[in-house]
Amino acid sequence: LFVRWASPAAPPFEIQVANTADDAALVQRIIAGDTRSVARLISRVEEGNNDNVPVLRELYRRSGSAKIVGISGPPGAGKSTLVDQMIHCYRAKGLRVAVVAVDPSSPFSGGAVLGDRVRMAKHATDRDVFIRSLAARGTLGGVTGATADVLTVLDAAGWDIILLETVGVGQNEVEVMRQVPTVVVVQNPGDGDAVQSVKAGALEIAHVFAVNKADMAGADQVARHLGEMLATRAQAASSDEWKVPVVLTEASTGRGVADLVEAIDRHCESLKLHPGIARREALNRLSARVADLSSRAIRQQLSILTAAAGEMAGKLDDVIERRSDPYSLSQELLSLISQPD
Amino acid sequence: LFVRWASPAAPPFEIQVANTADDAALVQRIIAGDTRSVARLISRVEEGNNDNVPVLRELYRRSGSAKIVGISGPPGAGKSTLVDQMIHCYRAKGLRVAVVAVDPSSPFSGGAVLGDRVRMAKHATDRDVFIRSLAARGTLGGVTGATADVLTVLDAAGWDIILLETVGVGQNEVEVMRQVPTVVVVQNPGDGDAVQSVKAGALEIAHVFAVNKADMAGADQVARHLGEMLATRAQAASSDEWKVPVVLTEASTGRGVADLVEAIDRHCESLKLHPGIARREALNRLSARVADLSSRAIRQQLSILTAAAGEMAGKLDDVIERRSDPYSLSQELLSLISQPD
Repeated sequence: LFVRWASPAAPPFEIQVANTADDAALVQRIIAGDTRSVARLISRVEEGNNDNVPVLRELYRRSGSAKIVGISGPPGAGKSTLVDQMIHCYRAKGLRVAVVAVDPSSPFSGGAVLGDRVRMAKHATDRDVFIRSLAARGTLGGVTGATADVLTVLDAAGWDIILLETVGVGQNEVEVMRQVPTVVVVQNPGDGDAVQSVKAGALEIAHVFAVNKADMAGADQVARHLGEMLATRAQAASSDEWKVPVVLTEASTGRGVADLVEAIDRHCESLKLHPGIARREALNRLSARVADLSSRAIRQQLSILTAAAGEMAGKLDDVIERRSDPYSLSQELLSLISQPD
Repeated sequence: LFVRWASPAAPPFEIQVANTADDAALVQRIIAGDTRSVARLISRVEEGNNDNVPVLRELYRRSGSAKIVGISGPPGAGKSTLVDQMIHCYRAKGLRVAVVAVDPSSPFSGGAVLGDRVRMAKHATDRDVFIRSLAARGTLGGVTGATADVLTVLDAAGWDIILLETVGVGQNEVEVMRQVPTVVVVQNPGDGDAVQSVKAGALEIAHVFAVNKADMAGADQVARHLGEMLATRAQAASSDEWKVPVVLTEASTGRGVADLVEAIDRHCESLKLHPGIARREALNRLSARVADLSSRAIRQQLSILTAAAGEMAGKLDDVIERRSDPYSLSQELLSLISQPD
């Protein structure tokens, strides 16, 4: 009942299972790989509009064949140039490549990062390369949820490889990377303190390390230190797990990039050989995504409640004035979301 | 139906509204200010056990009279010493003071911070001072949700002043501080780059700035720069909002601490004079808390699902194998949480 009183500008989370004809047509165009439809849906996802849910639901069920690879690392590590070289490498194998660049720490910046524009110009004539930077314009959900939805769209649209690049290595970036089965963390020889600056989070999420700018002094040392840190961790962990490789790359010339792509492929193969590990990791990704979706739904209900007048808005005042409590309100909103009729 | 199959070790989120006799007795002891009961309930809250919800629900409705003040700022700014001086200042006014120290960035460290132990020793004989550091031991909910619950417990237990201190100024600390009506951000004269290092988040959450270690060179300059930054912001914002004061303090000697406490009092008065602003801010805090509670509930359902066997666990596999999708699963879990019978 309450949901029907809501402002029409803010539709409730639950949407009819039966798609409209428009939605069905959009699903078909995206599955057929129509790039303009993909780009348009991604823009809608960025805006955080829940009208997209019926389409995303269909697309999710047709996704799962893309190889999705995360590229993380500190700013200035050369991630963009490395991704550019990876595109060339995958294209040489005849694979179609989509790149999504995300800056979760400044969700409202909205602009394309510089490296993005450089790459766009380079690959503008190649219809088998899709490059997009992602900003969470809407206040609901945030960039983590939007990223998961965008990966679903690109996967269903038939891209063979999807590279997800984040700007930094903070907590938000780690959250984004947790949604991806294979994560490459890029490091630099840097000033010698580079290894000390490997964040615990980076070690935790990395399936492959790339020590980029391998022509610089100290690259071998950084690679050796990383190897030692990883060996210590591997000893502590169970024995048949994936051994995280450290690959030296030189993005400016392309040296080592084929090795990096091969290491990524080996990780994907390893997951196929260890279905128990693959399932456990898929469960973790799924749990995070479902929790994120639910939190998004409740925030939307709350914003409807805040905008509403009369009895509805009174529910919040009841809590503020201690006639009710947040635990009861949470419960009530959850039941409203789950049964809108 | 599904909830009844769940492991008894992981009770469902929804709990009978009727409290047990034990719960009712606990509520009474806490309202009476029994410190041992308060300490024990806080430990239970830290563990993230949902059995606490009926008690917290009752306590929330009896809370709302404490003055809750957040103390944030970079490590090394002298927050602990400043909090110690604030305790003396409030005690001199005859007020009872509770301090909660939170380190949201390392939720599993679990140990009391050093400053905490020093303060504990100093105030060990004063029954009107309560000091506690908080770690989120359970994986569910995290430290933000636990902090809100702990503030509710202390508020209901009748503490006049509750000081919430965080270790750093990262994104997680900002989230914790968003739950508090009055936030003091502590800065240092530091190395001259101090002002540049004022994070956007700090400016956003601060109701009062304290430039601590005011005896060090550069303190006046930092205060002046802060004042200018705040004036620029105030011009952009609406005119009748609170003007964020900058107070010089010297925690080691206690100089300026009375001024800081007075600035905090003035902010509390200002909120009483502007009920519209006070309500808007209370709504924001409530929204964050309700969204957090809901996300906690869904994560708990997911962990039950992951631990379950047979048909239940199959729900997750259905999504992983694309027979279902995360949007539908989120919906289903929300309905299970909201109607357990």
